[in-house]
Amino acid sequence: MQIDTSPLARPFPALPAIAGLSLRVARAHYKTWDRCDLTFAELAEGTSVAGVFTKSACASSEVELGRANVRQGRARALVVNAGNSNAFTGWRGREAVEAIMVQVSEALGCPQEQVFVSSTGVIGVPLPKDKARAGIAAALAAEPCGWEEAANAIGTTDTFAKGAGASAMVGETRVELAGIIKGSGMIAPDMATMLGYIFTDAAVAPAFLQEALERANAQTFSCITVDGDTSTSDTVMVFATGKAGNARIEGWDSPGADAFAAALADVCRNLAHLVVRDGEGARKFVTIRVSGAASDDSARRIGLAIANSPLVKTAIAGEDANWGRVVMAVGKAGEPADRDTLSIAFGGIWTAKNGLPVEGYDEAPVAAHLKGEDIDIAVDLGLGEGRATVWTCDLTHGYIAINADYRS
Amino acid sequence: MQIDTSPLARPFPALPAIAGLSLRVARAHYKTWDRCDLTFAELAEGTSVAGVFTKSACASSEVELGRANVRQGRARALVVNAGNSNAFTGWRGREAVEAIMVQVSEALGCPQEQVFVSSTGVIGVPLPKDKARAGIAAALAAEPCGWEEAANAIGTTDTFAKGAGASAMVGETRVELAGIIKGSGMIAPDMATMLGYIFTDAAVAPAFLQEALERANAQTFSCITVDGDTSTSDTVMVFATGKAGNARIEGWDSPGADAFAAALADVCRNLAHLVVRDGEGARKFVTIRVSGAASDDSARRIGLAIANSPLVKTAIAGEDANWGRVVMAVGKAGEPADRDTLSIAFGGIWTAKNGLPVEGYDEAPVAAHLKGEDIDIAVDLGLGEGRATVWTCDLTHGYIAINADYRS
Repeated sequence: MQIDTSPLARPFPALPAIAGLSLRVARAHYKTWDRCDLTFAELAEGTSVAGVFTKSACASSEVELGRANVRQGRARALVVNAGNSNAFTGWRGREAVEAIMVQVSEALGCPQEQVFVSSTGVIGVPLPKDKARAGIAAALAAEPCGWEEAANAIGTTDTFAKGAGASAMVGETRVELAGIIKGSGMIAPDMATMLGYIFTDAAVAPAFLQEALERANAQTFSCITVDGDTSTSDTVMVFATGKAGNARIEGWDSPGADAFAAALADVCRNLAHLVVRDGEGARKFVTIRVSGAASDDSARRIGLAIANSPLVKTAIAGEDANWGRVVMAVGKAGEPADRDTLSIAFGGIWTAKNGLPVEGYDEAPVAAHLKGEDIDIAVDLGLGEGRATVWTCDLTHGYIAINADYRS
Repeated sequence: MQIDTSPLARPFPALPAIAGLSLRVARAHYKTWDRCDLTFAELAEGTSVAGVFTKSACASSEVELGRANVRQGRARALVVNAGNSNAFTGWRGREAVEAIMVQVSEALGCPQEQVFVSSTGVIGVPLPKDKARAGIAAALAAEPCGWEEAANAIGTTDTFAKGAGASAMVGETRVELAGIIKGSGMIAPDMATMLGYIFTDAAVAPAFLQEALERANAQTFSCITVDGDTSTSDTVMVFATGKAGNARIEGWDSPGADAFAAALADVCRNLAHLVVRDGEGARKFVTIRVSGAASDDSARRIGLAIANSPLVKTAIAGEDANWGRVVMAVGKAGEPADRDTLSIAFGGIWTAKNGLPVEGYDEAPVAAHLKGEDIDIAVDLGLGEGRATVWTCDLTHGYIAINADYRS
């Protein structure tokens, strides 16, 4: 099955080189395709690492080992396998990951726990150790590659390569951040898998890097949804090589900490948006702003209930300002809400206020807004100060076609 | 838009008359259609009532008043309006419901709180009081009608009339139960609305009736899903006229209590299945049996996570035994689960056991099972004794067509 490039695709941006990082790709032939499917990132000694991982109770060995090893705070290498997620493969899957960690740690002369591995693709098939071994040997011997090549190599059913960058001033030093991500295209029996990697030359203590990543994640990756289905392999990691020469950021009081965290959140938000833009069958990019909720967390949960509602998503696909379905989704979220203080707007125009339809609102600009590619829904609960923004895409025939009509 | 009758439709069954109940229908013209859209059920004095209602935080006035009034345990009348859900209409909506209660209570000479009202259909438009008033007057003057007429009159976008019956021996007395239900067809801007009414001639104390209904509901209506979207109007009520002449069932120790509760659960289960069979775009009826969970409640939540997963539902539409997507859905349910004790079967054939694919399982009968209309998925968590069964339908182009392609 050939899937067309998403109509919401964005061109790959120019991204800076990151001192202390060398990216290489190779053909491991995890599937019968002629493309690079193994990505190898070598990191300078002393690189700090942080990571957030899927909350799935059925996570892969890669996720289990990554979650455990990220705690020691140091990384020398990242290996990403595309085409086989190695999930639901028991001890054989774990053995394959450990073999990669041993091979890379011996090649670089570093502790095993500083080698991180991710895999994405078909599940239930143990990652073939021989292919991984040959692929890594090829990557170790390869010339460094560019960002777009790496972004393509980590992809599976993605319809375009995704990257984002930012810079920040840390004291007098300019630091660079660059990230790549894959996610949200699926063909049976593959699963939605979001893998994101951000690299920076900033010097950052691992504990602060982890805190900044978790804070950014809560407002970006945790606020997107395509279909509400959570992967067993979701992973976002940040690697900080420390080569920029800034005074190391130790905590929020360090010079440039806020600027660095803001730049990191910026990259995370841009990468998260790109995943939504490659959502299966997506034709519209939807921003849902929730305000007046009991708390920020409650606002986020209400936003996700709206974003995951098939009735809301199909209404948007049908270019229908169906605020009744938004009311329904707010009502089912299981969060504090009061029908009689609820207000809803499309494209900045309130169609319902304080529990009643706005009589005689101007329908023309609302209809025009819904015909566009970027849809904005605002919901005010009228209860408190909690707010959140979540992002999703519409639900179209393309989603059914990708996930039901074709078989692998 | 003309929607074809669901391929999973069932013929309307023969249902017994219930002594103490008179059913009538009328044209209230809530929409510009030529059909009966107002259903009136008159109940003998002394009728017990019980009800379960939507948990939506944005419930309609009908639901709010019904939930409050069911507590006093007596009913003389039920009015169901089709074509207008009267949801999200503020004080004007409430006024319309109260006007109906006053009109009917004056006609029957009964307290207002013994008159129950339900409405289903478009939201955000207050129920027109004049149309309701004329419709009720017409119903009061009409001849009694049969079950199928009433089942058709409460429907909106349903593609077939739905009813179910059962009988039970209470001591030496045979009691009859008969129920009708509507639900799960939607056209923008209507909302999924499930309204179900069960009538019996048994004599049953209101408190026991409520307990039996809640117990049945937990294993039937609470275990079905079409798209995970919860209506603002969902209502299921039971009316017991007491005309059968049995010794009144006061509690679980009364003769026939278990038999009556089993018959009630039977009717609820059959009605619930019919709603799934009329699920928008449904082509397959899916039964998901979860066992080995930490508790029954945990099993139900895992079952619903599977049943609501768009990736699982599209895989079934594609006749693909995609157990990887079932693993994903178990993993995201937020319930106790262990990847390495998880087993999954399609049509009784285990495709994955204890966290590993079953090597060399016979794919032919699995493929044949998935081509059928009734799909059976079994999931064993391998953790405890908790079990539950949930029911859903597949997710097809028909769902998108109904909810996105056409506008009201």
